[in-house]
Amino acid sequence: MTYCVGIQLDSGLILASDSRTHAGVDNFACFSKMSVFERPGDRVIALLSSGNLAGTQAVIGLLKQHAARSADGSLWQAESMFDTAMLVSDAMREVDRRDGQHLTESDVGFNASFILGGQIVGEPPRLFRIYAEGNFIEAGQETPYLQTGETKYGKPIIDWVITPATPLNEAAKCALVSFDSTMRSNLSVGMPIDLLCYERDSLEVRMRRRFDVGDAYFGALGKQWSEGTRQVFRELPDLDW
Amino acid sequence: MTYCVGIQLDSGLILASDSRTHAGVDNFACFSKMSVFERPGDRVIALLSSGNLAGTQAVIGLLKQHAARSADGSLWQAESMFDTAMLVSDAMREVDRRDGQHLTESDVGFNASFILGGQIVGEPPRLFRIYAEGNFIEAGQETPYLQTGETKYGKPIIDWVITPATPLNEAAKCALVSFDSTMRSNLSVGMPIDLLCYERDSLEVRMRRRFDVGDAYFGALGKQWSEGTRQVFRELPDLDW
Repeated sequence: MTYCVGIQLDSGLILASDSRTHAGVDNFACFSKMSVFERPGDRVIALLSSGNLAGTQAVIGLLKQHAARSADGSLWQAESMFDTAMLVSDAMREVDRRDGQHLTESDVGFNASFILGGQIVGEPPRLFRIYAEGNFIEAGQETPYLQTGETKYGKPIIDWVITPATPLNEAAKCALVSFDSTMRSNLSVGMPIDLLCYERDSLEVRMRRRFDVGDAYFGALGKQWSEGTRQVFRELPDLDW
Repeated sequence: MTYCVGIQLDSGLILASDSRTHAGVDNFACFSKMSVFERPGDRVIALLSSGNLAGTQAVIGLLKQHAARSADGSLWQAESMFDTAMLVSDAMREVDRRDGQHLTESDVGFNASFILGGQIVGEPPRLFRIYAEGNFIEAGQETPYLQTGETKYGKPIIDWVITPATPLNEAAKCALVSFDSTMRSNLSVGMPIDLLCYERDSLEVRMRRRFDVGDAYFGALGKQWSEGTRQVFRELPDLDW
């Protein structure tokens, strides 16, 4: 399993992913699921991967290779985030064409999916979720966030707190608490957490951080959050029976 | 789907259930999932039902009929909550013997399960989860709560807030917020919510309430909770990048 979340705010984007991959509880490993393509002043594109690791690595590998060669149809040429989503989708279908049949035979299937967020000069920041089939949806004002993987434990905190007007720094803390909630309940979601906080129109990565096991800030956040919520409960009016 | 939760505290028990049943999104209805057997000064036994409605009603029906007749092996005769759990299990197996084969033929299966909480004089309050197979587990100090149905959305708030030392009134509010979290995300969990707050050694039901759609307290609780958590986020230390 995996947990990835993207949040689209008036002031920018939050993107966060865990790093645990596993094939059964006796075979787990650590791989970053966040890939960033940055050309300062022009574009910042971030991809969060979910699903079978061979599939997601193949897609990211193709995208990176095209980008490194500045090939036609690379992420550097895309004129919009919508076009970028289509390029990711194309890469997914290319991998599926190559591997899909062999995976179906062994009953696994190609199941990579992505959260794509970023900004290309001339457009506002945009956020997409790309399904394993290669089709995709875009976040909007009513639903300003998208999740993949083990989404349920970490959803209520985002619903309670996030609106498009939420400041970036508050939303970043909310995303971390959403991860804390998920990791307490699902062992297949694990540290380190990669967090990217993209400031609208900055067109460069200024705030990116990795939270590893034992991170002092992350530990303190969880503790203070827990104490803060207990305090909120004490202050809520008691029930009349 | 359903959402039921039982919480075992030093000061008593919280039991809560939703009331929505459905067979597809175009066929849903409202049935209470909480059944209470009370003999003041002697015992309070509460059952929360999950699963196929015909199955859970048949089990509760049998238990009520035995109790009404004060038959041997009724809930009034049980000498402990452990014995009570076995009586519920026996009733489940009786219904399964009668209906199971016919349900298997139509690919539905007998899938009733229960949360059982209460106190019988001479024992402390106890809390069990009884699986569809009729076997069961009991809550303990490390895991003082048990859930059935759509459990994931409402779990983090309980993990953050509840310890065995949490006062009854705070735990009751926490259970309601846990329902609010779940109902925002899963349409198959719905009002009214039945809430029973059992005070240790009272051996009678003093605090039981139903929260229906539009309940003023429930609405205010959700709103104040949401505002309170935003305030907690504003007060958490900002990230260093």
